[in-house]
Amino acid sequence: MRFQVYGTHSATSQSRHIMSPRNLFYAQSGGVTPVINASAAGVIQTARQHPRQIGKVLAGKNGIVGALREELIDTAKETRQALEGLMSTPGGAFGSCRYKLKSLDENRAEYERLIDVFRAHNIGYFLYNGGGDSADTCLKVSQISAQMGYPIQAIHIPKTIDNDLPLTDNCPGFGSVAKYVAISTREAALDIESMCATSTKVFVLEVMGRHAGWIAGASALAAAQRGEAPHVILFPEIAFDQQRFIDKVRHSVDRHGYCVVVASEGTSTADGRLLSDQGERDAFGHTQLGGLAPILADMVKEHLGYKYHWAVADYLQRAARHIASQTDVDQAFALGKAAVELAISGANAVMPTIERRSTKPYRWRIGEAPLQRIANREKKMPRRFISKDGFGVTAAGRAYFEPLIAGEAYPAYQKGMPLYTRLKKVLVPKRCRPWRD
Amino acid sequence: MRFQVYGTHSATSQSRHIMSPRNLFYAQSGGVTPVINASAAGVIQTARQHPRQIGKVLAGKNGIVGALREELIDTAKETRQALEGLMSTPGGAFGSCRYKLKSLDENRAEYERLIDVFRAHNIGYFLYNGGGDSADTCLKVSQISAQMGYPIQAIHIPKTIDNDLPLTDNCPGFGSVAKYVAISTREAALDIESMCATSTKVFVLEVMGRHAGWIAGASALAAAQRGEAPHVILFPEIAFDQQRFIDKVRHSVDRHGYCVVVASEGTSTADGRLLSDQGERDAFGHTQLGGLAPILADMVKEHLGYKYHWAVADYLQRAARHIASQTDVDQAFALGKAAVELAISGANAVMPTIERRSTKPYRWRIGEAPLQRIANREKKMPRRFISKDGFGVTAAGRAYFEPLIAGEAYPAYQKGMPLYTRLKKVLVPKRCRPWRD
Repeated sequence: MRFQVYGTHSATSQSRHIMSPRNLFYAQSGGVTPVINASAAGVIQTARQHPRQIGKVLAGKNGIVGALREELIDTAKETRQALEGLMSTPGGAFGSCRYKLKSLDENRAEYERLIDVFRAHNIGYFLYNGGGDSADTCLKVSQISAQMGYPIQAIHIPKTIDNDLPLTDNCPGFGSVAKYVAISTREAALDIESMCATSTKVFVLEVMGRHAGWIAGASALAAAQRGEAPHVILFPEIAFDQQRFIDKVRHSVDRHGYCVVVASEGTSTADGRLLSDQGERDAFGHTQLGGLAPILADMVKEHLGYKYHWAVADYLQRAARHIASQTDVDQAFALGKAAVELAISGANAVMPTIERRSTKPYRWRIGEAPLQRIANREKKMPRRFISKDGFGVTAAGRAYFEPLIAGEAYPAYQKGMPLYTRLKKVLVPKRCRPWRD
Repeated sequence: MRFQVYGTHSATSQSRHIMSPRNLFYAQSGGVTPVINASAAGVIQTARQHPRQIGKVLAGKNGIVGALREELIDTAKETRQALEGLMSTPGGAFGSCRYKLKSLDENRAEYERLIDVFRAHNIGYFLYNGGGDSADTCLKVSQISAQMGYPIQAIHIPKTIDNDLPLTDNCPGFGSVAKYVAISTREAALDIESMCATSTKVFVLEVMGRHAGWIAGASALAAAQRGEAPHVILFPEIAFDQQRFIDKVRHSVDRHGYCVVVASEGTSTADGRLLSDQGERDAFGHTQLGGLAPILADMVKEHLGYKYHWAVADYLQRAARHIASQTDVDQAFALGKAAVELAISGANAVMPTIERRSTKPYRWRIGEAPLQRIANREKKMPRRFISKDGFGVTAAGRAYFEPLIAGEAYPAYQKGMPLYTRLKKVLVPKRCRPWRD
């Protein structure tokens, strides 16, 4: 997979680039996370330590869209303080996007545009920070070298709260969301436990995870001992059976006085239909407007008559930098750093990964994997992490999750509020024709 | 208001109680908060410092229901560590309840039962920790002395995330929820700001607040400068007008590229109808709410076509001890302490309050107010705290909110999870006949 780009391309027009450092393009892609900016910090700080190989770090404004539009943020224009703040700021500080490049055959013009922009700005390194779809985009860019003769090295930096990328033990972003969800579940459980004697008996928390139940699974860490919440976890990997669900909730209320349910948004019935997409109607006859939690709560009310509460964490979970996992922040930074080191070493079409060396004590190191084996593949929760009845997490699952939420990486506060950095995002002057998208 | 109970009652059967310390009954009532247990800690620690006046602290298991059922938790049986843990544990550690005493005329048997239990356990102090409905219960108990001849002093300790009790500048519980909501809004805003160029443009966060918009109002602290989120706040105090709402959202997206809406669950139209009325009612006859966010999101989609996300924080907001306000924790403890001191001084039918002495710098002290002026009254957001257009918070409002969220009272962590205390809840032996409820 690894090869020397410069050795394989000898076009005269590029020879001057070999002599001087080339610029690095970095972009954020897809849904953001509490720690994606820590990866950006890893990229920028490391690139600056290698001035002979790397010139400027230019960040795409709103991901790859910034490359197409030639909206390139000059990171050298940001203050040192702002760049340090990336370590503790959620969201995508440079802007992210949902934009998937078509194949070279389908949209050659897009690739030609990218090459125009890369050439105009002497960009030799393409570092793309995203999930599965983004790995696909990164792979396509990596092929520009071979297929279109422009020397560029494309390195993917993993990021997804869904934790569903293959070949890496876990993905940056996930550990912090896992921590938030586990803590929120423990806290809400103490709330309902206080109230259940005379009031609410069932609490449903809906969390993200369309195809994989990693986030919902992490809520299992809320239970310090057997019998504690969550009592029911719903995974996309396990077909939803209404009767079994109702029985499980009833059993939990009978035994503990209350029941806490954590549901993956992607929970589906055996025929593959999303539970949240069933055309249910509310009291006013309105179609349910998305939201699995109210559907489950209503099901409980109808069959068991219990008073319920429900919450949908949505963006709150994936932006909750205030309670990020220190392990997660460390790994996000390390992967950004590793991506630059891979680039300098001549790698292309690869992704640095997290390799778990040991669980107790937790030890990890950076590995690498070829993008061809990552793009467009989803890693689901293994069945051995899910309890036999399909509603819980096994000891093996807990052991997997536990180290990922370790440590509290608190941001700095001022007047009771976290100090999150806001970049100036100064664009470098345009050199290409406008892009019509 | 204040009077010496022992001086006014000379029944022989009580005379031995005068000679020896009498026991203190403490109970938690209504929806719990991140800091109600800090008030409990204030009560228990302070009571122990006055052994000549106060014997045991007996806590009602599940609030006043514990008194009726004679389920009295002996706090002396808890470990020192567990009691210290109350300072940083959310929920109601002794169990709470939604149970409102009827009037003496309507249900004399309940009051006679309370007196039986109080007498059997030598209870002379009744400390009730709750909101407006609970203040009413506390007031009724305080009248037992005068109306039924059993000497008891009833002191109410304020607690409500809704911040809607009169005569106190703020209520313990609110500051922490305000902090959580303001931080969550700032974080989610960074998320949507990253995505809005190619994806989600509107984010709706639904927060608690049936009749008063204090919690939604506190989200205004998310904006460090003009133009930052939240762009639209919906208060129960301001009649909802769909066209004005849609116009405001459109304006925000046009100007900033995205729009963050924070909506009080109690948002209503001019005719007083809740936007989210589901028809369910709880034990107090309150409508069970939840589900406004998807209705607003759908409205945006229908009229403006923007992609949206929405979250309903529900219990997560009022259980979020992991990001509690230090000011809030301090005040919750101080009010529990003050309640015991009031009891020792002979007070009855009063509530210790927070008096704001100064906003910049923030200085507060404990005051007191008669329960008759508190029970069953709601303090809404003053109009001068709400911006002219009804969608925001004024500088005066910000100045009110800001000190209440100051300081981060982090709990201790183990293995990445907050260490929350769990009490043994050992009941004292029963001495009365069973209670049929």
